[in-house]
Amino acid sequence: MTARASDGFDQIAREAVYRAMFTRRDVRSHFTPEAIDDEVLARLLLAAHHAPSVGFMQPWNFIVIRDANRREKVRDLFLTAREQELPEIEEERQALYRKLKLEGICESALNICVTCDRERSKGSPLGRSHNPEMDLYSTVCAVQNFWLAARAEGVGVGWVSIIEARALKNLLSIPGHVTPVAYLCVGRVSQFAPKPDLETQGWGRRLPLPELIMSETFHGQGETPLKSAVAQLNRLAAAPAGPDDQRVAPAVPQREPPKEASALSFNSLNLEDASASR
Amino acid sequence: MTARASDGFDQIAREAVYRAMFTRRDVRSHFTPEAIDDEVLARLLLAAHHAPSVGFMQPWNFIVIRDANRREKVRDLFLTAREQELPEIEEERQALYRKLKLEGICESALNICVTCDRERSKGSPLGRSHNPEMDLYSTVCAVQNFWLAARAEGVGVGWVSIIEARALKNLLSIPGHVTPVAYLCVGRVSQFAPKPDLETQGWGRRLPLPELIMSETFHGQGETPLKSAVAQLNRLAAAPAGPDDQRVAPAVPQREPPKEASALSFNSLNLEDASASR
Repeated sequence: MTARASDGFDQIAREAVYRAMFTRRDVRSHFTPEAIDDEVLARLLLAAHHAPSVGFMQPWNFIVIRDANRREKVRDLFLTAREQELPEIEEERQALYRKLKLEGICESALNICVTCDRERSKGSPLGRSHNPEMDLYSTVCAVQNFWLAARAEGVGVGWVSIIEARALKNLLSIPGHVTPVAYLCVGRVSQFAPKPDLETQGWGRRLPLPELIMSETFHGQGETPLKSAVAQLNRLAAAPAGPDDQRVAPAVPQREPPKEASALSFNSLNLEDASASR
Repeated sequence: MTARASDGFDQIAREAVYRAMFTRRDVRSHFTPEAIDDEVLARLLLAAHHAPSVGFMQPWNFIVIRDANRREKVRDLFLTAREQELPEIEEERQALYRKLKLEGICESALNICVTCDRERSKGSPLGRSHNPEMDLYSTVCAVQNFWLAARAEGVGVGWVSIIEARALKNLLSIPGHVTPVAYLCVGRVSQFAPKPDLETQGWGRRLPLPELIMSETFHGQGETPLKSAVAQLNRLAAAPAGPDDQRVAPAVPQREPPKEASALSFNSLNLEDASASR
């Protein structure tokens, strides 16, 4: 007896979870000045707080930054870091790099710095003796929960990684044993772009997932049926939408009655890498 | 005009996203031997592949490990690492540590090692000049997507962090420039426990979220309305269930008609930290 029948996720619920993932965006350009209700923000933080954490350590803190002056200073840190990063980018891509919008620090409703207290499990570092970075990873899980919950609430999130950590720590009075993991721009948006900005602007393309799947070892071929199943998902998503479709995202008519094992209509989702396996 | 009205998440869809987060568990004890269909596994991997990544780098690979002999070797690595970690645990907690079940390597349907290729954006490390660890963080986002999608599919996931990375790299032939980020046990389960195992067994307790929220700086008081909103969510979740409730998780009758801003009935969710703010 497994939990499958009783675990509370029907097809609609499963699709909602996938839709949050497939339509989540790293938002830079589409923030509106509209405020975010504290009730909504509270839900997003509670979602973050329910991330997995090594040894149930819950190493995170959430610094909510609303002050316009402080945010301008953070943006200055970004601008400095971007100038420093530019020479490290391949020369033929530098012009494109300069054009990319890579943050929405001042135009989003608020910012949140998610930090990791490296000493919160001091004395009993369950799961961190061999991998001390696990607390940082736990904090990232909290960020991803926040991001997905935000998508479901219609709130955009952008993660600014072009910033010098020590300067940010100074600006936000973050103590030495605490690491800033993510600096997030958070706000209502005019749209969630159909594709990642970096894909639209030609910086990169979605990699073909089947090529990223290995069998048994890092160089192991195999898992052919699994790779075929992935390719099949992509094919479903790539098919043209039917005229009578009422769903949110582009969809195709079912070609056969849904089976239990494949009841999720991925074709109703906004799968932007539809052609990735081709 | 914001995306709120048209972004496709009604109350039911939002609740599904939160439910995946609040009922997700780090599974060790409840795996069944039932196989996972490739169609299901393909969806989970596609979810992982749609995680955010720094510079659209997509640094992840997924090594699917099914072979029983190989898994026994991985479990041996775990057993060795656990013995090594034990002396680092506070003496009065060592007996409890020994009792904890911390992996399901051999009894789950399969294992997946999620790795990070540190060189995939070589030449144009957008977003990684100042924070080279961002690619590891992107890989963790993929893990969390996988984990939440699995929950929605009724599939359990457990992350084994008590393992020596170099030994694991040898065993799985992972090259030097690739870092194993997560070793996951994946399988159907007999149940998703109502609380994290480490909470049930007295290793830790859910921290009160309001105390983890800071204003403007790491030591900044403030955000009182936000903290009140968080406490209010916890109160709703803590109230006793009504007799006529048909929902999946313990719930309370609405005390007032739902307002637009708080239409999400968090009280229908399985919020295990209900009393955290008390």
